[in-house]
Amino acid sequence: MTDSRFYLKRDALSLSDVCALISVPVPEGANKDQLFTAIHTLKEGNAAEIALFHNPKYREDAEHTRVGICLTTDAFASYVGAQLENGTCQTIVLVHPEPYRAYALLVRAFFPEPILKPSIHPTAVIAQTATIGEGCVIGAYVVIGERAVIGAYTKIDSHTVIHDDVCIGCNGRIASHVTISHSLIGDRVLIKPGTCIGQQGFGFHMDEKGHFDVPQVGIVEIGYDVQIGSNVCIDRASLGKTKIGNGVRIDNLVQIAHNVYIGDQSVLVAQVGVAGSTHLGNFVIVAGQVGIAGHLTIGNGVKVAAQSGIMRDVVDGMTVAGSPAVPVQDWRMQTVALQRLVKGRKNGK
Amino acid sequence: MTDSRFYLKRDALSLSDVCALISVPVPEGANKDQLFTAIHTLKEGNAAEIALFHNPKYREDAEHTRVGICLTTDAFASYVGAQLENGTCQTIVLVHPEPYRAYALLVRAFFPEPILKPSIHPTAVIAQTATIGEGCVIGAYVVIGERAVIGAYTKIDSHTVIHDDVCIGCNGRIASHVTISHSLIGDRVLIKPGTCIGQQGFGFHMDEKGHFDVPQVGIVEIGYDVQIGSNVCIDRASLGKTKIGNGVRIDNLVQIAHNVYIGDQSVLVAQVGVAGSTHLGNFVIVAGQVGIAGHLTIGNGVKVAAQSGIMRDVVDGMTVAGSPAVPVQDWRMQTVALQRLVKGRKNGK
Amino acid sequence: MTDSRFYLKRDALSLSDVCALISVPVPEGANKDQLFTAIHTLKEGNAAEIALFHNPKYREDAEHTRVGICLTTDAFASYVGAQLENGTCQTIVLVHPEPYRAYALLVRAFFPEPILKPSIHPTAVIAQTATIGEGCVIGAYVVIGERAVIGAYTKIDSHTVIHDDVCIGCNGRIASHVTISHSLIGDRVLIKPGTCIGQQGFGFHMDEKGHFDVPQVGIVEIGYDVQIGSNVCIDRASLGKTKIGNGVRIDNLVQIAHNVYIGDQSVLVAQVGVAGSTHLGNFVIVAGQVGIAGHLTIGNGVKVAAQSGIMRDVVDGMTVAGSPAVPVQDWRMQTVALQRLVKGRKNGK
Repeated sequence: MTDSRFYLKRDALSLSDVCALISVPVPEGANKDQLFTAIHTLKEGNAAEIALFHNPKYREDAEHTRVGICLTTDAFASYVGAQLENGTCQTIVLVHPEPYRAYALLVRAFFPEPILKPSIHPTAVIAQTATIGEGCVIGAYVVIGERAVIGAYTKIDSHTVIHDDVCIGCNGRIASHVTISHSLIGDRVLIKPGTCIGQQGFGFHMDEKGHFDVPQVGIVEIGYDVQIGSNVCIDRASLGKTKIGNGVRIDNLVQIAHNVYIGDQSVLVAQVGVAGSTHLGNFVIVAGQVGIAGHLTIGNGVKVAAQSGIMRDVVDGMTVAGSPAVPVQDWRMQTVALQRLVKGRKNGK
Repeated sequence: MTDSRFYLKRDALSLSDVCALISVPVPEGANKDQLFTAIHTLKEGNAAEIALFHNPKYREDAEHTRVGICLTTDAFASYVGAQLENGTCQTIVLVHPEPYRAYALLVRAFFPEPILKPSIHPTAVIAQTATIGEGCVIGAYVVIGERAVIGAYTKIDSHTVIHDDVCIGCNGRIASHVTISHSLIGDRVLIKPGTCIGQQGFGFHMDEKGHFDVPQVGIVEIGYDVQIGSNVCIDRASLGKTKIGNGVRIDNLVQIAHNVYIGDQSVLVAQVGVAGSTHLGNFVIVAGQVGIAGHLTIGNGVKVAAQSGIMRDVVDGMTVAGSPAVPVQDWRMQTVALQRLVKGRKNGK
Repeated sequence: MTDSRFYLKRDALSLSDVCALISVPVPEGANKDQLFTAIHTLKEGNAAEIALFHNPKYREDAEHTRVGICLTTDAFASYVGAQLENGTCQTIVLVHPEPYRAYALLVRAFFPEPILKPSIHPTAVIAQTATIGEGCVIGAYVVIGERAVIGAYTKIDSHTVIHDDVCIGCNGRIASHVTISHSLIGDRVLIKPGTCIGQQGFGFHMDEKGHFDVPQVGIVEIGYDVQIGSNVCIDRASLGKTKIGNGVRIDNLVQIAHNVYIGDQSVLVAQVGVAGSTHLGNFVIVAGQVGIAGHLTIGNGVKVAAQSGIMRDVVDGMTVAGSPAVPVQDWRMQTVALQRLVKGRKNGK
């Protein structure tokens, strides 16, 4: 089901290859040499294909599936093929404690990453004082400023602009139409197209005589193994650093204001906005369209439900929801209470 | 009132031209040769100009208008000029069942679309294996990758990047600074500047040892007659397709995650976000800043009020509002109930 | 604490320099020749550095600060160094009625803006009929269309596209990857990277036979001293003007639809969306992620809390909150009432 125009794909994996890749034993009685040719969905996959079942929403698809291998958890294994006619389920069920991770390993095996062919496009404008590491791929019309440093094996797609003095680590993947200034970026950072990093933040003395700007003289510092979506904005600090920790994942259209700190491994889903000087701990998960006010401290391991609006500090480990955000169980009760008010009214009370 | 620098404008239309264009009879007693020179607003237009009145918010402007022609519906016709001194209303009222459509026809007549002069800017970097249809306009610094196909009479503005193997249909209009990869795009598709289509989605196994990426090996498929706003993000599928149906309209800053399906003729207003694998039916209308969670099914003809947050499936034809979204009448009652609670408190109850 | 790679910094200012810059007297008994070398935070600054204290959230930092100078207000002055051991506070407290403005003056003094060196990059594609004022800096791969006018001393960073007939005033600062069409822009306007201005708005007759476009034949007019963030979208008018008044500040990822009017000095924080034909007065402050429906009038001096959704006109001077937005005091009472409902339920009532 993958469009062969866009991806190089391995022809097939044997059952023993599959089991070795995901570190599970070949099921008893199964033919270890049986070949599987692709990854597909529970619903549409056939007997030569492999599918993932880790979200209970797809139970019905799992019950009727005809895929050759189903990766799933112990808890879901009994649903696989359960609604097929007795004895017609041919699916090999591979149980794994982290089936989504196992799935990722198989996708990687079917679609090996193409090897970079180092090249610098003749139209790239690279300052003489810039340093380009070995093995880099620099696309058409890329602009790289004075004294900028691009680490080895980093790929910068066409049209991206790296301003003076920016440092980018090794093995980076920077897409097209990205603008980066005033930033220090670690190794293995992936940035999707259209993203802007390091521009001056929204800082001024508000005044009826005319707003009065505060020069923004800080930087952005991004750790290693970070991924940043498309059309994201990360403003540089007014003083000091806006900091994105190691392993952070930022989805599309997210706004990170000046002096924000995002702790290691935190995840920000699409359209989230974090206002200035707010500090998020490690392993924080912020669902889509959440807004977080400025100058707050959000603890380690906090989870924030979609569309929440956080106006106060949140302690470690809490899950919050709503606008203004409250502990998630209170938010559920608010929702129920509101519905009861309405029901009362519907019944003429 | 139109700045002649930016638009080519026809000098005038006669009353009979106007009536013919919108398929209504010339009103009895009117001079079919009377000339009208422009489109304007009810408030500011003069006796040689034409205005639209289809939104009741502008009733007061309609009552005092001095425009030459007012396009409106049967229901609103009696308001036109109603507050002018007796007998001074000179406005010709043209009643049309779809006055906004009629208005569009007249604007099109006054501002004929300029004819494309086929050209490929010498700075465009076009791979030798790419195919550019006849009559295309390719702007400065455009980059077109290997084996990409651009249909006839498509215009690609300066600085847009079309990656390897992308196909774009005929009569497309792609603005500046657009990035497109891993996509198949139909005929007559308009994409506004800064939009990113086909980048990898937000897919990884979340893990405290370090998030673990799932390669995103699907594509984006866009139907015909689609319009996509500025700084929009449409991620490619993790497997299979992210699909945008025929005639869909997507406003600025919208987020479409991997494997989303948007049915034909649906409309997504600015800053909407649709999470992964959610399926919207045909003729769905989603107002601004709405968030829709992942793996949901939103039926045909559903309407979603602005800023709603949808967390469950919605059946065909329903109108929903609120966060979490509920049927719109329930949401209205919730709003009233909340206001009553507050009123009670204000009165010391 | 400032990364010297990215900024030119003055070595030091004497106490008398500092006091002169912000128009306060040198405190009695202080050494007017004492040198201060940098700006820093209350928490991390040392005896040779200057910090700002104007947000009560940082009171604890102020009480323990060891900075050389603290800029603050009369009301906060007594906190500075209050928790240090008796007699060990060496901080010179400079009281100012607008300490953030005073701070801005000092940052400007330490970081003088670099002087532009006029230049036009050889790769810029500038139409022969375009006019470039004296002293401009035009970056690599900039595209400037026919008859466009760029005022004196304006800087346009690499990769920005200025379409035909656009006028930009003097002393502008236009960052990379900006797209501007159909616009007239005043003096001293700053636009951050990735922003799109002047593209056609979201205007069509909705129709089950297929949506029917209304040509968008208006412009965008932007006053002077305006600042516009990254990845912002400002659509041109369908007819007439989308207008951004003088001194307006627009943060990242904001959506301004066609025919919107933003009055002078108004402030729109990140991810705000304003729907078509809505009119904001002067000095309106709209916090992050607010949505404002179309065809509304928002009065002068209105303040809107973050994430609010405005569905009705708002009179001058009001502060509103919530979705749908209500007067802020009502919104606070709604919030409290909801919490009481939940508390009642928790207690088994």
